[in-house]
Amino acid sequence: MNDTFLKACRGEKVDHTPVWIMRQAGRYLKEYQEVRAKIDFLTLCKTPELAAKVTLQPVDILGVDAAILFSDILIPVEAMGMHLEFSDKKGPVLGEPVRTKAGVDRLIIPDTEDSMPFVLEAIRILRKKLEQKVPLIGFSGAPYTLATYIIEGGSSKNFMNTKRMMYQNPGLFQGLMEKITATVIDYLSAQIKAGAQAVQIFDSWGGNLSPYDYENIIFPHVKKAIKALKKFDVPVIFFVNDCAGLLDIIKKAGADVVGIDWRVDMYKAVKTLGKKVAVQGNLDPCALFGPKEQIEERVQDILNRADTAKGHIFNLGHGILPETPVESAIALVEAVHRLSRA
Amino acid sequence: MNDTFLKACRGEKVDHTPVWIMRQAGRYLKEYQEVRAKIDFLTLCKTPELAAKVTLQPVDILGVDAAILFSDILIPVEAMGMHLEFSDKKGPVLGEPVRTKAGVDRLIIPDTEDSMPFVLEAIRILRKKLEQKVPLIGFSGAPYTLATYIIEGGSSKNFMNTKRMMYQNPGLFQGLMEKITATVIDYLSAQIKAGAQAVQIFDSWGGNLSPYDYENIIFPHVKKAIKALKKFDVPVIFFVNDCAGLLDIIKKAGADVVGIDWRVDMYKAVKTLGKKVAVQGNLDPCALFGPKEQIEERVQDILNRADTAKGHIFNLGHGILPETPVESAIALVEAVHRLSRA
Repeated sequence: MNDTFLKACRGEKVDHTPVWIMRQAGRYLKEYQEVRAKIDFLTLCKTPELAAKVTLQPVDILGVDAAILFSDILIPVEAMGMHLEFSDKKGPVLGEPVRTKAGVDRLIIPDTEDSMPFVLEAIRILRKKLEQKVPLIGFSGAPYTLATYIIEGGSSKNFMNTKRMMYQNPGLFQGLMEKITATVIDYLSAQIKAGAQAVQIFDSWGGNLSPYDYENIIFPHVKKAIKALKKFDVPVIFFVNDCAGLLDIIKKAGADVVGIDWRVDMYKAVKTLGKKVAVQGNLDPCALFGPKEQIEERVQDILNRADTAKGHIFNLGHGILPETPVESAIALVEAVHRLSRA
Repeated sequence: MNDTFLKACRGEKVDHTPVWIMRQAGRYLKEYQEVRAKIDFLTLCKTPELAAKVTLQPVDILGVDAAILFSDILIPVEAMGMHLEFSDKKGPVLGEPVRTKAGVDRLIIPDTEDSMPFVLEAIRILRKKLEQKVPLIGFSGAPYTLATYIIEGGSSKNFMNTKRMMYQNPGLFQGLMEKITATVIDYLSAQIKAGAQAVQIFDSWGGNLSPYDYENIIFPHVKKAIKALKKFDVPVIFFVNDCAGLLDIIKKAGADVVGIDWRVDMYKAVKTLGKKVAVQGNLDPCALFGPKEQIEERVQDILNRADTAKGHIFNLGHGILPETPVESAIALVEAVHRLSRA
C-alpha cells in the first residue's frame, strides 16, 4: 500500500509529498455526475456501495495518495434529530432552527452504530477495496461549524443568530456545543473503529470568529474532541477555513496535522505552528483554472514554503470547485509527485 | 470642530479614541429607513441633499467622531459604462460581465466632475453642515474589489471568473486594473478637492486572494492609487476585509491608517504593522447583538490591544448589520469615549 500520506501525517520521511484534494469525490468528475444523475445527494451519502464507489473515483482518476469517505458534514446533525434536505439552489436546509432551551433539549446525542450505520458500512467496504492502494480518511464537521447549521437552519452569511445566542445566552450555547462535541467524538471514534486510518475535523466557519471568541468560547470543545480521539493510533487533521488570524490558537489543538487555507503564506504558517505538527494545503482552488505551467509554478512555490514543516500533505486550501477542469486536477497531482521527488 | 479623528489618523495625541462605524448611515436606523421608504437606493446615492441628510443621521444619533459620505462603491463602475441596478434580494446587479478585450476596451475612465457631480455636490453640502461638528470621510472601492464586480457582474462567492481572467489572461486583467485604478485616483482626488478630509479605500474582496496573488497581481495598483493621493494633505485609510494573512504586505501600501477586520488580534496587527501607520477597528459587528456589559468588555479589550499603535480609530471590523439594535451602536460609541478617556 502507498502509505506516504500516513507517514507525512506523522512527520516520517517520505519519497514524495502526498496529495489529496478536499471534495475530490465531486461534481467536477463526470463519473460522479453519472452516479448522481440516478440518485439524490442525501440518498447517495446513505447508500454504502455507492458512497464507496464515488469515494474510489478520484483515487483511480487522479492518482491521489489518500481517499476520503464520501459523505456530508450534516449527516450527524440529522442523526441528532433535525430534519435535513438538500436544495440545488439553497444548499442544505435544516428543519426549524434551534434557538431555545427546548430546542437544544430535544436534540439527542446519537449512537453512530445505531443511527448512522451506513457511514460505517461504507468505511468497511472501502477498506477492503483500498487494501492495496491508499489510506482512507474519515471526517466530521467541527462542533462550532455544526452549531452554525443547527442555529441558522442552513448556510449563513454573517452567523448572526449563532453569535446572538453565543453572546446573549452563553449557557444555552455551551449546552448545545457539549451535545455536538459528544456527537462528534462518538461519530469519529466509530469511524476509526470501522477502519478509518486518519480523521479530519472540518471547521468550515470557525474562521469567521474573532480570535477572542474562537479561543474562549469554541476552542475548548475542539481540544476536548481531539483529546478523546488520541486514544486511537490514527492521525487527526484539524482544518479551520480562513485560519490566518487563528494559527497560534490552532497550534494548541493537539492535532497531528493542521490544514491551511489558501489565504495564508504557508511559510509563515509553518513558522507559527512550529515543529510539533505537520501541515496540509494550501493551493487556491481557483488556481486550477489557470494554465498548467502556472499550476506547476504554484505547486513548486508551496512545496518550497512548506519545506521546513514536520510533514507536508499537499491539498487545495478549500474544496475543489464543481467547474474545475479534471485535467487540471490530474496535472496538480502529477506536479506534486514529480516536483517533490526532484 | 471635533478633530480627534484626524489627529488619530496622523498619530497625534488625542484626549479620547475617536470612533465611527462602517455603514453607519444605514438600515439599522429608523431615520434612514424613513428616507429610503420614499426613494430607491441608487436615486438616494445620486440626490445630494438626501445623501447628505442620511450621512448626518449617525453623527447626531450616535455621536460618532467622523461622518462618511453616503454612497455606494459601484457608483464609479456605473460611470465607467456598466449598467447598474440594486435588487433587494440579489444585491447589486451589473450589466453584461466584462470578460473579453472588447469588454475592457468599452469601459471608459470617467471624469468625476462630469459623470459623478452628485457625489461632489453632496460633499460640498456636507462640509458646510459639518463645519462645527466632525470631519467628513470620502471613499472608493479598491481596484481589485471593483474588478470583481465588473468581471462577475455582481456579488460572488468564489470569484471564479475574476481569478480565471487573472490567471488565463493576465494582460487583459492588468489592462482592466489600470483603467479602474485611474478611475479610483480621479474619483478620490475629486472628492478631496470637493472637501473630503480623509478617504478610505475599501478592498472588500482582496482578502479572498492568496498572499502570493495579492502581492504580485493586485498590490501594485493599490500602491499606485495611494501614492497619487499623497499630494493632498489628507489621511488615506486602507481597509482590506479578511486581512489577517496579508498584513505584512498591506504594511507597505503607503496608507496613513490600516483598517483591521474582526478576525485579527489587534495586538498582533499593531505588532506586524509597526510604528508608521495608525490602525482602525476591529470589533465583530455581531458583538452588537450582545448585552451592553459584553460590548464594554470587548471595547476595553480592543483599546488595550491597540494601545501601542501610532494612532487608533475605533470601528467595527466590517459594516454594521441592518438588524443591529440602535441602542447597541449608541452604547458602543459611548463606551469607546468613556473607556478611552479613563
